[in-house]
Amino acid sequence: MIMNQPPEALPGVTLVGGGPGAWDLITVRGMRALQNADVILADHLGPSTELEKLCDLSGKMLIDAAKLPYGRQMAQEKINELMVEHARQGSNVVRLKGGDPYVFGRGFEEVQACQEAGIPCTVVPGVTSAISVPGAVGVPVTQRGVVHSFTVISGHVPPGHPQSLNNWEALAQTGGTLVVIMGVKNSRSIANALLVGGRSGDTPAAVIQEGTTSEERTFRCTLSTLADVIEHESIKPPAVYVIGEVADL
Amino acid sequence: MIMNQPPEALPGVTLVGGGPGAWDLITVRGMRALQNADVILADHLGPSTELEKLCDLSGKMLIDAAKLPYGRQMAQEKINELMVEHARQGSNVVRLKGGDPYVFGRGFEEVQACQEAGIPCTVVPGVTSAISVPGAVGVPVTQRGVVHSFTVISGHVPPGHPQSLNNWEALAQTGGTLVVIMGVKNSRSIANALLVGGRSGDTPAAVIQEGTTSEERTFRCTLSTLADVIEHESIKPPAVYVIGEVADL
Repeated sequence: MIMNQPPEALPGVTLVGGGPGAWDLITVRGMRALQNADVILADHLGPSTELEKLCDLSGKMLIDAAKLPYGRQMAQEKINELMVEHARQGSNVVRLKGGDPYVFGRGFEEVQACQEAGIPCTVVPGVTSAISVPGAVGVPVTQRGVVHSFTVISGHVPPGHPQSLNNWEALAQTGGTLVVIMGVKNSRSIANALLVGGRSGDTPAAVIQEGTTSEERTFRCTLSTLADVIEHESIKPPAVYVIGEVADL
Repeated sequence: MIMNQPPEALPGVTLVGGGPGAWDLITVRGMRALQNADVILADHLGPSTELEKLCDLSGKMLIDAAKLPYGRQMAQEKINELMVEHARQGSNVVRLKGGDPYVFGRGFEEVQACQEAGIPCTVVPGVTSAISVPGAVGVPVTQRGVVHSFTVISGHVPPGHPQSLNNWEALAQTGGTLVVIMGVKNSRSIANALLVGGRSGDTPAAVIQEGTTSEERTFRCTLSTLADVIEHESIKPPAVYVIGEVADL
């Protein structure tokens, strides 16, 4: 996790945040790590479909480690095993992830797996879709005089579920922008929890599917109509929704 | 704000998020925008001291638009004027900002200034220091089974101030990670507000000054001791602090 070293100088595993989707929204450091990789273990998120724009793929081993929402293709344990195994064989391994590795991406679990195996592990941060996807459609998560905070929420576990770690009543009351990722399936219960918690139904909202890519779709609505819009427009993951006054600037 | 276009193909102003500090944590798109710029209006944050690693500066006009914390060097209105003026003269203007333009950076105000002047404006997102600076010292803002949300808070306006837009009691109760930026000066009143709001004094915390640069300094503490650590260690901006169980993983 020594971030001030160029990653290509380090053996082992480099976790790279690939950004929200567009190939050139990866960092320069992330691109250089890809260029120096022997093995690339890539999600379907981030720039994985246009990797050839970032590095010469000849001589590199490409492993599809896609973990699609609601349809996991490869178990996390298998990804961890592959990272460690290839690093032990002396390869420079890049684990390319969508967004930022530490934003609901199980990145720290992958760091821990490397540490437990005694494999050096470097993390290259990425542009998170939670901020950049709203930004790409003209919704800034902050604006002076409008909000002094924004909260990024995983919508994977619905409100009221025994495994939920969110206090939805408090989240409804922060006064700031709320950004929900991985929240398509549970949008109705999430919107309801925020309404019950006291956030106004008139609060502006925006839903963005596949932001920053050519498949981008955006819908403006309110907290009251959010779940209906997601249902009627057949919004599919990956999608982000923003709730807050910034959605109406 | 058409993000799917390569920024060098567009005239006018490009707002570029420069990332947390290290020169190579800018995006590839941001680097290309710099390479194609005629005029660069740069903050002191982000990669501005090592611009020559990202582009050939000969023939480019470099304008120091530093807005240092607590000692603003150039008024926002002057920055807006300069952007518009140079763009009107036909220059490709890059406005290089620290972090991400939309995270408490007045980026949207700059977009609006361009729009009002009829100047095309493109925004290139950046790696925000709110996530990457903790990450660089081994503090992930999220971890599965530990938190399902994180909140990024501007600490510029203290709790209780008439201009404060934060509900600190709710922020204390979210159950998630809290990241405070621009909060050095007000750390004592912020920590107190969170304690009063019900967040435990034992909650792990970490303070990071000038993260991802060679000047990086990190201190681990708790919510109870945070303000004392900031005072005793003479922490200066730019600094970030994280409050939450993730600070102790």
